[in-house]
Amino acid sequence: MAILIDGKLTAAQIKERIKATVEQSVANGGKRPHLAAVLVGNDGASVTYVASKEKACADVGFDSTVIKLKEETSQDELLAVVKRLNENHDIDGIIVQLPLPKHINEQVVIKNIDYHKDVDGFHLANVGKMVLNMPGFLPATPFGILTLLKQYNIETRGKNCVILGRSNIVGRPMANLMSQKGILADCTVTMCNSKTKDIAYFTRNADIIIAAIGVPEFLKGDMVKQGVVVIDVGITRLPDSTKPKGYRIVGDVDFASVEPKASYISPVPGGVGPMTIVSLLENTLKSAQGKKLTWV
Amino acid sequence: MAILIDGKLTAAQIKERIKATVEQSVANGGKRPHLAAVLVGNDGASVTYVASKEKACADVGFDSTVIKLKEETSQDELLAVVKRLNENHDIDGIIVQLPLPKHINEQVVIKNIDYHKDVDGFHLANVGKMVLNMPGFLPATPFGILTLLKQYNIETRGKNCVILGRSNIVGRPMANLMSQKGILADCTVTMCNSKTKDIAYFTRNADIIIAAIGVPEFLKGDMVKQGVVVIDVGITRLPDSTKPKGYRIVGDVDFASVEPKASYISPVPGGVGPMTIVSLLENTLKSAQGKKLTWV
Repeated sequence: MAILIDGKLTAAQIKERIKATVEQSVANGGKRPHLAAVLVGNDGASVTYVASKEKACADVGFDSTVIKLKEETSQDELLAVVKRLNENHDIDGIIVQLPLPKHINEQVVIKNIDYHKDVDGFHLANVGKMVLNMPGFLPATPFGILTLLKQYNIETRGKNCVILGRSNIVGRPMANLMSQKGILADCTVTMCNSKTKDIAYFTRNADIIIAAIGVPEFLKGDMVKQGVVVIDVGITRLPDSTKPKGYRIVGDVDFASVEPKASYISPVPGGVGPMTIVSLLENTLKSAQGKKLTWV
Repeated sequence: MAILIDGKLTAAQIKERIKATVEQSVANGGKRPHLAAVLVGNDGASVTYVASKEKACADVGFDSTVIKLKEETSQDELLAVVKRLNENHDIDGIIVQLPLPKHINEQVVIKNIDYHKDVDGFHLANVGKMVLNMPGFLPATPFGILTLLKQYNIETRGKNCVILGRSNIVGRPMANLMSQKGILADCTVTMCNSKTKDIAYFTRNADIIIAAIGVPEFLKGDMVKQGVVVIDVGITRLPDSTKPKGYRIVGDVDFASVEPKASYISPVPGGVGPMTIVSLLENTLKSAQGKKLTWV
């Protein structure tokens, strides 16, 4: 019987802590952290995500600004908005909600965000810092996973960590982070991908598995060893007529068969998901506090 | 009986190609690529490395400038030199020979090099680009290894690649590169380190092993499977009274026991070593040609 890694509870506790920090800081004459989100177009999921971030800011006492631009906004117009936010000293963090419309080059937009305000951790300067183990902004999901590992005192040193997926927002950062020297790291890391011939070979020998491939219920009980720690980053809606909404949310892990063998497991929903926005808040607070955000 | 991966020959061929490119470019009125090397102090190995780089530049028709500074040069003085080189339009590539004296912060110096001229590929902007699979400068040793894999048509797709070591100049870049999508990549990558409990477990299942831990003759024949491809990045001098110089150069691989089982193996010396300077020349040529070196 595994211990459930409760992201919802952990996220709520961190939000309380951030809120208290902000209140105290403001009481002492400090400024409120201020997150700016740019939303281009009307993609349903993007609208929902931005609204959640706005609400999370309000919950912890941050100021937030949402700039809504039309779908047909040109890249130059978007870059002008980013530049204005870069130059606005009241703004501590800037996020441009992805995906962007196809006529806009996402990498060009991201690299034009002042990396000191890049609270999504997507700017190549922050990616470089993460790889070189220098202080900077970590991307939200990896940051959230590290926070959960810390919260549950999960031993990582010398452990065999298998990462399913190599995306720039989860798999690859996690591989770089878990293989660093230090606490919450020092793992032997294997990064599997869609070309891996026998994923079960790797997962069966894993002490820690981070599943981030977006294949619902991919990891089965017979693919893991007894005592494994499982972090499920997947989130897929599966049609389910027995549910009021007509679907259920599942992760990359077949919870029913994996949970009995695991020592710790993060559920979906309620595991990694709630940590993402909280990590964004943590980055924004860090930016507002001006902590160690120079290049070196 | 393994095929020897001949870095000496490959490097010589690439140098010939670079030389021909430069001659043709100059004949057409182009400028000669120009590499500037900064050497602080009198560390014996550093003096030798810089001299080799200077000679390699001369061999292929590059201009080179070596700036020798005293051991007691302050960080600010060094940064002023770097700034001058950044601003000098004739200089295409800048390297600051490492290690630097202890009173100087290497990361501060590196981040002050214009990353467009960072032909060592150490600047965090170039590290970030490498991780995100964007065009930039690759560090010399990883670049050299990729060149050898290409030269010998070694299939990497879907292969199990085990990397011994997690340094910022070899192990970590190789892990990020071999796990990218594309040719010379698409591997399942495992990065082992000094905390790994049973390295042989990983190496025995590897199709490709890249050894970069600096432990002489660490990888033995009984740690590899038949047909493995072995890239040896180690280079250690072992005392040997039977040799004229009183020492012999060995790698991280016990060549005598591993070679009979390997399909391809890079020897030490004469394998990866000669590729390093050539990769630096390739980066400098690329910089001089102004190829795709914008941020995105």
